Amino acid sequence: MGEFDLIRRITAQAPTSGTGVVLGPGDDAAVLRLPPGQDLVLTTDTLVAGRHFPHDTPAADVGWKVLAVNLSDLAAMGADPGWITVALTLPEADEGWLAGFVTGLSELLVASGALLVGGDLTRGPLAVTVTAAGHLPADTALRRDRARPGDLVAVTGPLGDAALALALWAGDVPSPDSAQGRLRRRLVRPQPQLEIGRRLRGVASAAVDVSDGLAVDLEQMLAASGVGADLQVDRVPASNAFAALCPAQQRRGYQLNGGDDYELCVCVPADAPVDVLERLVVVGQVRADPGLKLVGADGQELSFERHGYDHFSR
Amino acid sequence: MGEFDLIRRITAQAPTSGTGVVLGPGDDAAVLRLPPGQDLVLTTDTLVAGRHFPHDTPAADVGWKVLAVNLSDLAAMGADPGWITVALTLPEADEGWLAGFVTGLSELLVASGALLVGGDLTRGPLAVTVTAAGHLPADTALRRDRARPGDLVAVTGPLGDAALALALWAGDVPSPDSAQGRLRRRLVRPQPQLEIGRRLRGVASAAVDVSDGLAVDLEQMLAASGVGADLQVDRVPASNAFAALCPAQQRRGYQLNGGDDYELCVCVPADAPVDVLERLVVVGQVRADPGLKLVGADGQELSFERHGYDHFSR
Repeated sequence: MGEFDLIRRITAQAPTSGTGVVLGPGDDAAVLRLPPGQDLVLTTDTLVAGRHFPHDTPAADVGWKVLAVNLSDLAAMGADPGWITVALTLPEADEGWLAGFVTGLSELLVASGALLVGGDLTRGPLAVTVTAAGHLPADTALRRDRARPGDLVAVTGPLGDAALALALWAGDVPSPDSAQGRLRRRLVRPQPQLEIGRRLRGVASAAVDVSDGLAVDLEQMLAASGVGADLQVDRVPASNAFAALCPAQQRRGYQLNGGDDYELCVCVPADAPVDVLERLVVVGQVRADPGLKLVGADGQELSFERHGYDHFSR
Repeated sequence: MGEFDLIRRITAQAPTSGTGVVLGPGDDAAVLRLPPGQDLVLTTDTLVAGRHFPHDTPAADVGWKVLAVNLSDLAAMGADPGWITVALTLPEADEGWLAGFVTGLSELLVASGALLVGGDLTRGPLAVTVTAAGHLPADTALRRDRARPGDLVAVTGPLGDAALALALWAGDVPSPDSAQGRLRRRLVRPQPQLEIGRRLRGVASAAVDVSDGLAVDLEQMLAASGVGADLQVDRVPASNAFAALCPAQQRRGYQLNGGDDYELCVCVPADAPVDVLERLVVVGQVRADPGLKLVGADGQELSFERHGYDHFSR
């Protein structure tokens, strides 16, 4: 089975036509139409086998996740997802793997309303790059450089699950109902926070997604905004599965340095609408003085070695 | 030097702000504004080291070429280039390589007017994926499925150079003024045909870029259009360097099956404006009867094994 047949299989299996698609896969490029008055939002992320996911990750989970990490970036901008391209590099023409990959990818395409409009299939070490294009009303993007002193710092959900799941990774897939199974699902099937991202347009001062670790991602947002914040470490939410499986002394490390959870971290004015605040867990407050201070339950500053995921420093 | 420092170096060196860029690199995603009434054109292509380019290719040439192959897809749609993202996977934090890569990339960004607005830097086997976004007036895209019987088949320039250059590849870089140096340049520094692509809007019936080989690329355009064509093999243009270095009996193979030249192959009505026809070399004519027939100088059909580049069948 050659390259063109494989591509035909992919485009036959995935959703490729619908809103805004003037011309989908099969030509030199896709032609797309944005709603009038909307800006284009564009992001790209690569997952490399053995680095971003264990080699024995099911293909469907790889398909889901590479899309999820891109849609999470759109969510962090407050954008509506539109169209994606997929550049897939495969060691061999493994039809089974490819079918699984497209199944997982398509599940999230359908769930999010995004459409596959193009791509490239090449031979080489296993890696996938997705580019996601979304859109939003002009001048409503949630930037990371507009946090203001007095803003509340909040997150959209529990943190630490994905990092703990990776630490507990073993070849056999845990039962989906077990605590470990629920953690595993958070790692391999992250949910991009598109709905809350949209609702934060016009409300949040600043937003990022938590992909590298809360401490680093929040620090970057604060630095870009020229402000600082106190983070109440004990307020950072944890899932029941995380609470059940994480040794107490490692909890803080997974929650603050663990990446891959793809919740949003946002700065919102304290007088934001209640229906938005209800969807958030407040974990701190922005102040004018630069720097991120980690604060314990007793109000004392904690010393804590923060580090995010850096490909070239470990 | 960590991931974030490397990214800062890239964005400091490349053009990242200008027309249509509401928000460039550094946030979760870029925010871009298309001219009113224009459609978005989106394409993505990956180059893998050792497969798409020899491992000893200078980094600057890799940077140029990965952008060129994407801009060539925009050219084949008749689009104006706008913005690109770059997903770069590097085996190690090689600052020299990266600086070279960004130098070559930036040269073509500046020459084409495109801007770098985002990307991803990961660690792994050397590969680069560029996604290029362009735009054109609504409903003017040059599709591949609208060729009509009677159309002339034409190309924008000489073919076979890149394939011959690859066959002659040796570690030492040939002198730029030599025939081999000029061939090498066609391979590593292909020129996307953006200007003629734009002029073909509203004129050409169908267009593709010659990336996999003229025979296969033309066949695909004909099949998509439900038509056929006679290709006058001896009319396919060759460069002087190609004519000087290619053994006569291999000429046809390089010209018809050789990929990577990134000229356009188009179908245009015979009554197209003279200033457009002047820019093209007519090599055949479209007929209703499906299939591509290769015809010699004597008008007789040639038997010829055609094959394009297929990652999974060799």
